[in-house]
Amino acid sequence: MTRMNAFYAQSGGVTAVINASACGVIETARKHKNRIANVYAGRNGIIGALTEDMIDTNRESARAIAALRHTPGGAFGTARYKLKGIDENRAEYERLIEVFKAHNIGYFFYNGGNDSMDTAHKVSQISKHMGFPVTCLGVPKTVDNDLPITDNCPGFGSVAKYVAVSTKEAALDVLSMARTSTKVFILEVMGRHAGWIAAAGALAGSGKPEEPPHIILFPEIPFDQKAFLNRVKESVDKYDYCVIVVSEGARYANGKFLAEAGTTDAFGHAQLGGVAPVVAQIVRDNLGYKYHYAVADYLQRSARHIASATDVKQAYAVGEAAVKMALAGESAVMPVIKRVSDSPYRWKIDKAPLSRVANKEKMLPPRFISKDGFSVTAAGRRYLEPLIRGEDYPPYINGLPNYVSLKNVPVAKKLKTNFVV
Amino acid sequence: MTRMNAFYAQSGGVTAVINASACGVIETARKHKNRIANVYAGRNGIIGALTEDMIDTNRESARAIAALRHTPGGAFGTARYKLKGIDENRAEYERLIEVFKAHNIGYFFYNGGNDSMDTAHKVSQISKHMGFPVTCLGVPKTVDNDLPITDNCPGFGSVAKYVAVSTKEAALDVLSMARTSTKVFILEVMGRHAGWIAAAGALAGSGKPEEPPHIILFPEIPFDQKAFLNRVKESVDKYDYCVIVVSEGARYANGKFLAEAGTTDAFGHAQLGGVAPVVAQIVRDNLGYKYHYAVADYLQRSARHIASATDVKQAYAVGEAAVKMALAGESAVMPVIKRVSDSPYRWKIDKAPLSRVANKEKMLPPRFISKDGFSVTAAGRRYLEPLIRGEDYPPYINGLPNYVSLKNVPVAKKLKTNFVV
Repeated sequence: MTRMNAFYAQSGGVTAVINASACGVIETARKHKNRIANVYAGRNGIIGALTEDMIDTNRESARAIAALRHTPGGAFGTARYKLKGIDENRAEYERLIEVFKAHNIGYFFYNGGNDSMDTAHKVSQISKHMGFPVTCLGVPKTVDNDLPITDNCPGFGSVAKYVAVSTKEAALDVLSMARTSTKVFILEVMGRHAGWIAAAGALAGSGKPEEPPHIILFPEIPFDQKAFLNRVKESVDKYDYCVIVVSEGARYANGKFLAEAGTTDAFGHAQLGGVAPVVAQIVRDNLGYKYHYAVADYLQRSARHIASATDVKQAYAVGEAAVKMALAGESAVMPVIKRVSDSPYRWKIDKAPLSRVANKEKMLPPRFISKDGFSVTAAGRRYLEPLIRGEDYPPYINGLPNYVSLKNVPVAKKLKTNFVV
Repeated sequence: MTRMNAFYAQSGGVTAVINASACGVIETARKHKNRIANVYAGRNGIIGALTEDMIDTNRESARAIAALRHTPGGAFGTARYKLKGIDENRAEYERLIEVFKAHNIGYFFYNGGNDSMDTAHKVSQISKHMGFPVTCLGVPKTVDNDLPITDNCPGFGSVAKYVAVSTKEAALDVLSMARTSTKVFILEVMGRHAGWIAAAGALAGSGKPEEPPHIILFPEIPFDQKAFLNRVKESVDKYDYCVIVVSEGARYANGKFLAEAGTTDAFGHAQLGGVAPVVAQIVRDNLGYKYHYAVADYLQRSARHIASATDVKQAYAVGEAAVKMALAGESAVMPVIKRVSDSPYRWKIDKAPLSRVANKEKMLPPRFISKDGFSVTAAGRRYLEPLIRGEDYPPYINGLPNYVSLKNVPVAKKLKTNFVV
């Protein structure tokens, strides 16, 4: 069998466990040195391939690669860079193949979301046309949980656990002070298009109405200020406090984001900002309750210290499976997680053709959202609960997680031409 | 010896470990049933004493009390309620003593910050004048770390660990995307008067200039926009990114908080809001970098899931010591933490008279802040480092911390009169 190199790149926003997938890819490739000589990683994602700026992962010790399993962020750098359609920008695809050819790269592992699966799919097609067929595998990753076919996306379980734990903890804080101080607490979470992450907040309580969060604001449900304020008041009247989880994508019936509520700074500039302060002001102006809000932002998707053990295992498994599928002759596919049962939770790795994954979004199904639009149904809880199970703590030194920084030694360039992205 | 009851109350903002102090008080009292018959807890802090609304902690199992050690928030409720001076409001003090007398309460344990130590001190004095002397002990607690005499305050170590870990994790996220996306990340933390919590962000890195956080904005250092922007640009030029930890108390030379920067909403109302978006706008308007910001708010002080083991131990120890001191005949004192050595870190429990603690604030010493005003000195790091050491994870069930909710059974009222606070 021919011995070739593999190229691995991370794409888009990182997660607490994307490096666990990298670990799965590299460790599995190292077990097949007779087939895969080296895994070259793209520095800053696909840009590293286009600019022939690749990282020699053979220069990293087994211990350093193993430590990727517990290190958040993107170890080789990632990029928000989407290759255009082939007709619009054939030069980029041709450059990729030129770089792959020069470095004897026969395998392409692309770790990302919808856009990345589209790219991997196109590279697979064009490489064949150009007479240098590359085995292209997608490795799923996104905190947004919006990839189709796969039951869930690596990265989501950990952000879900972070949001559920944080909501539960902050709720205990607010409840203990509600008599004389803050009555309303708002946590802003990610998810511009889909309410998966906001839904995870529901796991903070058991689903009983007195347990927090008392309100979830989903992007899928148009914001109804009157119904919202009624619910806040009811919660404070009955339970002394009200905990709200709001998706950054919460919007009005006309499609306008709450976050774009038209606030301006002292100079009249439109003010950028989160949705949490807007919701807080609506509460203050109409009900007068004392409030606090938190904006989790990057903390939620980098919180490896509270990662879901299930998520870490699955992130590793999709990386491992991608290499095994590639070696078994599969191409233009992505390993997916298939749920076998809810309780006990069982799952296995299956595969899906990239053509069926690319550029498609899986929205939060309406049956997961309660009739009133403010909480999650029993079906939604059954889906979400297993994904946050288990703790997988990183090792600590002197009170801080011992995250690895790789050496990231460059692969010597072979091409004479530069490529400007 | 006379057998009497004890009263315990929590005061002010809660911490991840204030319940560990409650656990220390109650478990230690239970070991001395011959002296302390029961610990009555104030529902919603001191308000519970004034309104004779007390909780019978004898109705809680040993297991439930033990679980307080790993449960954040205030288990009995707390209050932002400061008793006025004796001359202004003698009635409140007299009412306290009346309630204590009715319930045979000979011990008063007040778990709080500066204000609470003042109250405990006054109760000690007035109870003697009124011929019903109550043994009054302070139990230190504050995330702000601003109590005098004690080397550090229970509650601070855990928020410090949360801030250091979160900064480290978010920095890995930002660094991996900086080439094509966010270059500046801002984390807003608590500390309106003193920069202790912001300083803890420094522990995310080793202190080398390339390691995050690249800038800390302290309340103690007047905000110098030009110097700040120069530093942001320098950091992005040299290291590709810039991570900023900003205290909510950051202010201009004229004393005005950055958070009050005069933003208004669409209706011209002054907008309440954090300092992080203000700093973000300064960066955007002057340097144009893409940024993200997080507002940790209550998450930071309720994050028991990432509490410092040192902090948990100390929080328990001050509760335990307060009971032991009371039983040894001490009154009007507060157990304090005395640092014996930095490395290896060793500490012991000492005591301080409440008169020396009450209403005094310990500010971040200038020698802990670097000359340029943007980071922490080696002396500051030596002080901070031991406080975040060790992990003390709560037990988990189905992916969530198993925090306890007490039964909080009320003590039967004995007085005919109501007291309105």
